[in-house]
Amino acid sequence: MALIVHKYGGTSMGSTERIRNVAKRVAKWVRAGHQLVVVPSAMSGDTNRLLGLAKEISDRASPRELDMLASTGEQVSVALLCIALQAEGLEAVSYAGWQVPIKTDSSFGKARIESIDDARVRADLAAGKVVVITGFQGVDPNGHITTLGRGGSDTSAVAIAAAMKADECLIYTDVDGVYTTDPRVVPEARRLHSISFEEMLEMASLGSKVLQIRSVEFAGKYRVPLRVLSSFTPWDIDLDVEAASGTLISFEEDEKMEQAVVSGIAFNRDEAKITVVGVPDTPGIAYQILGKVAEANIDVDVIIQNVSHDGKTDFSFTVHRNDYARTMELLETVVVPTLGAQQVVGDPKICKVSIVGIGMRSHVGIASTMFRCLAEESINIQMITTSEIKTSVVIDEKYMELAVRALHKAFGLEEARDA
Amino acid sequence: MALIVHKYGGTSMGSTERIRNVAKRVAKWVRAGHQLVVVPSAMSGDTNRLLGLAKEISDRASPRELDMLASTGEQVSVALLCIALQAEGLEAVSYAGWQVPIKTDSSFGKARIESIDDARVRADLAAGKVVVITGFQGVDPNGHITTLGRGGSDTSAVAIAAAMKADECLIYTDVDGVYTTDPRVVPEARRLHSISFEEMLEMASLGSKVLQIRSVEFAGKYRVPLRVLSSFTPWDIDLDVEAASGTLISFEEDEKMEQAVVSGIAFNRDEAKITVVGVPDTPGIAYQILGKVAEANIDVDVIIQNVSHDGKTDFSFTVHRNDYARTMELLETVVVPTLGAQQVVGDPKICKVSIVGIGMRSHVGIASTMFRCLAEESINIQMITTSEIKTSVVIDEKYMELAVRALHKAFGLEEARDA
Repeated sequence: MALIVHKYGGTSMGSTERIRNVAKRVAKWVRAGHQLVVVPSAMSGDTNRLLGLAKEISDRASPRELDMLASTGEQVSVALLCIALQAEGLEAVSYAGWQVPIKTDSSFGKARIESIDDARVRADLAAGKVVVITGFQGVDPNGHITTLGRGGSDTSAVAIAAAMKADECLIYTDVDGVYTTDPRVVPEARRLHSISFEEMLEMASLGSKVLQIRSVEFAGKYRVPLRVLSSFTPWDIDLDVEAASGTLISFEEDEKMEQAVVSGIAFNRDEAKITVVGVPDTPGIAYQILGKVAEANIDVDVIIQNVSHDGKTDFSFTVHRNDYARTMELLETVVVPTLGAQQVVGDPKICKVSIVGIGMRSHVGIASTMFRCLAEESINIQMITTSEIKTSVVIDEKYMELAVRALHKAFGLEEARDA
Repeated sequence: MALIVHKYGGTSMGSTERIRNVAKRVAKWVRAGHQLVVVPSAMSGDTNRLLGLAKEISDRASPRELDMLASTGEQVSVALLCIALQAEGLEAVSYAGWQVPIKTDSSFGKARIESIDDARVRADLAAGKVVVITGFQGVDPNGHITTLGRGGSDTSAVAIAAAMKADECLIYTDVDGVYTTDPRVVPEARRLHSISFEEMLEMASLGSKVLQIRSVEFAGKYRVPLRVLSSFTPWDIDLDVEAASGTLISFEEDEKMEQAVVSGIAFNRDEAKITVVGVPDTPGIAYQILGKVAEANIDVDVIIQNVSHDGKTDFSFTVHRNDYARTMELLETVVVPTLGAQQVVGDPKICKVSIVGIGMRSHVGIASTMFRCLAEESINIQMITTSEIKTSVVIDEKYMELAVRALHKAFGLEEARDA
């Protein structure tokens, strides 16, 4: 008997028929002797419908009331799933975040989980019940409902699994695992049977949308074994087959893993590049430029500062493409006159391509293999950043698919490594 | 400065535009210097939509999960109303029942309010905020969400007004007050400027749908001044005019009230009549018949047992028309063979017409005026029941409108009495 947390995304909960299928799948696990805690997202479209109503009324809604509003979507889901589980002949009970309670800070709309009291849930499990808990939400020290931000249900599920020391947290979603890269770009992309936590963290932060990055961080911090798998396989497939499907995010760095130097190729075309040209190379210059950007609540990703010539340097960074126009305007009207930079140039048509692999720690020459591969395709590299287990390059957007396919091949990712 | 509770029904909250209008009306009261607590129902249609989803999954849903589900409708309403109030420049905060808390027993689906802690609400009011509280719901001693049953938001509003000793509880609805009878049946029906609590209680229990009977009982128990008024007058009408509009449900039995012998005519065509013919007139016979009916969870309204002839009697009662077929079947298969009754006869095409008036306590001959009036119209009376302030007759359904119009005229209800 194991304690298992299942998380189902909004698409998996998208209709009453799909909810019945989720219940049948959960019932299969319960009948196999496991204790189940289930964390469903809101039915797909529901959160947007609710926020749309708020928008019709005002675009200055307080975050506190938006959380009060949006949190109802998950409450509907847990109740409906319990009703479906009861129809399967199981005992089931649903809890909203405040009922567990899942305690968070008071950052409405992007709250962080501070603690989870699992006494109530444990008592229900011991009494033979399935416990269904709202994702995405919690309660702050003043008894206000908070939400964790988009995709927060992944984080809720992992946090509950961590608090309860669950044997595994299964994230059921509309893809069947983590791939070496996006199969829509590289048809030869291969599903990974396992990936290390650190690699998954890089993949998530680099634009792979399979898991919310915060849920991966949480899993890493509390060493929660995490599996991403499909909710669209028939609910009645053999449990052992299902339990070994998808991708395991693992904390055991076994030898097999060490053998794979690069695990995946991530890419992201949501960014735009901005360069402040000819800025005086004085202490604090990065802060003076990026401080203004941060004040405007604009997130910066890649940052590059080159060595200076004649006391002047070029300072480049990337922002989300949606923030591009605003950032350019800000820099032109504020930073250039103040800092005496020559000009600000930008390019929204770029993309970031990254190779990720825990093996890069112990292997030299990986980055140069990447650069050579891109050179052979005549792709110019505009920016480079590296970390211990990834190397990212910024290139012209139009070369994205070409670069991803070439790198996928260069690192032999189409060949099975851990089957 | 007064402390006022506003309650808005589902139709008044039926769209984001209507919610904005509610906010403007509330803002008018706040700007006139009053402290406001607002209790909105779920947006019209929302509760049915949610229960419809549950029904698609299973018709054996547990009441506990149905309450978890249905309570979200009101949570959506309070959040949206707060957003609209904030857009009006007011400070506003919403609370779900558990946040106040509004404590109830554990009768899911028809919970009773046991206590309301008003400390949090008072602190917000003192800080200049409008407080918006979910109707229809509370929290039980184990921290489960409960609902009060259909129309429970009226009860929530009155209970909150009682707990806070509010100066008045205004029930905004889609009619503009309590009428002498239904204006759709008698065009001359007149809106009452005031009605006593006891009369309102009888009117509500006899089928006048303006207020939920439990809310009237609550108002009576805690002497909450209650006003029923329209939410469809323009929000910007003069506050003093609005405050004197509708119908006041009053606890002051002033002389003016005593003068009106009959205040209104109520009617109800949702009932069906059943007679067990020739049942032995032995002790406990009523219990033996109605006990079976109660076990089947069927509510009985009027009950008549006549004097017996030859040791046999006829026993008649009315049930809701929806329960008619089920009750007939139950009696024929269970009661007749067991009790030795001759037969069971029934008639679903009946209606109940009642005259209600606190003046009936001190005036004789009111019932005979009623019977003479019906006789003059050649309407046969099938059953009669009386209480201190009402007399009800059961008649053939086809005479309902005729009876109501004739009685309305016979008691001079078209003439203004308290204008």
